[in-house]
Amino acid sequence: MIPSQNETPEARLATCRERIDELDRRLVALLNERTAVVECIGQIKKEAQLPVYEPKREDAVYANIKANNHGPLPDDAVQRIFERIMDEMRKIQKERMVLK
Amino acid sequence: MIPSQNETPEARLATCRERIDELDRRLVALLNERTAVVECIGQIKKEAQLPVYEPKREDAVYANIKANNHGPLPDDAVQRIFERIMDEMRKIQKERMVLK
Repeated sequence: MIPSQNETPEARLATCRERIDELDRRLVALLNERTAVVECIGQIKKEAQLPVYEPKREDAVYANIKANNHGPLPDDAVQRIFERIMDEMRKIQKERMVLK
Repeated sequence: MIPSQNETPEARLATCRERIDELDRRLVALLNERTAVVECIGQIKKEAQLPVYEPKREDAVYANIKANNHGPLPDDAVQRIFERIMDEMRKIQKERMVLK
C-alpha cells in the first residue's frame, strides 16, 4: 500500500490521496445503495403500519458489522461511524415516509 | 429493489435486511481499506514531518464526495457521515503515528 520509497513524500502522498478519493467514491455509491434499500423498508413499514424505530434490528446491524470487522479500524470506531449512517438514514425514512 | 408484492411484509423486510447486511459488510471492508491508506499517509507525514491536520485536503475530500453523490442521500447527509469517518481516522492517525 505504501508507495515507492524512491518518490518524494509529496508524490507518495498524492498517490495515497488518489486511492482515498477512489475509495470515497465507492463509499458514496454504497451509502446511496443502502439508502435506497432503507427507503424500500420505509415503504413496506408504512404499508404494514410497522414502527420505523426497531432497537432490536439496530442491535443486529451492529452485531453484523462487528463480526465482519477485521481492522485496522477498531470496533468502537466502526460502531460510531454506523451510528451516524443509521441516524442519517432514519431521518430520511421518517421524512419521506411521513410515519409517526 | 422492492421485493415481490405477493410476499408478506415480514418476508419483504427480511429480504431488504439481508441486502442491508451485505452492503454493510462491503462498507466495513471499504472503511478498513481507507484506514490502511490513512495509516500509510500518517507514516509518510511522520517521516517528512508534515502536519496531520490539513484543512485544504479535507475540503478536497468533501468536494470529491459531493461531486460523486447522485442520491438518494442528500449532500449534507453524506457530508455529515464523512465528517464522522474522517474524525475517526484522524484519531487513529494521531494515536498510531504519535504526531503532534
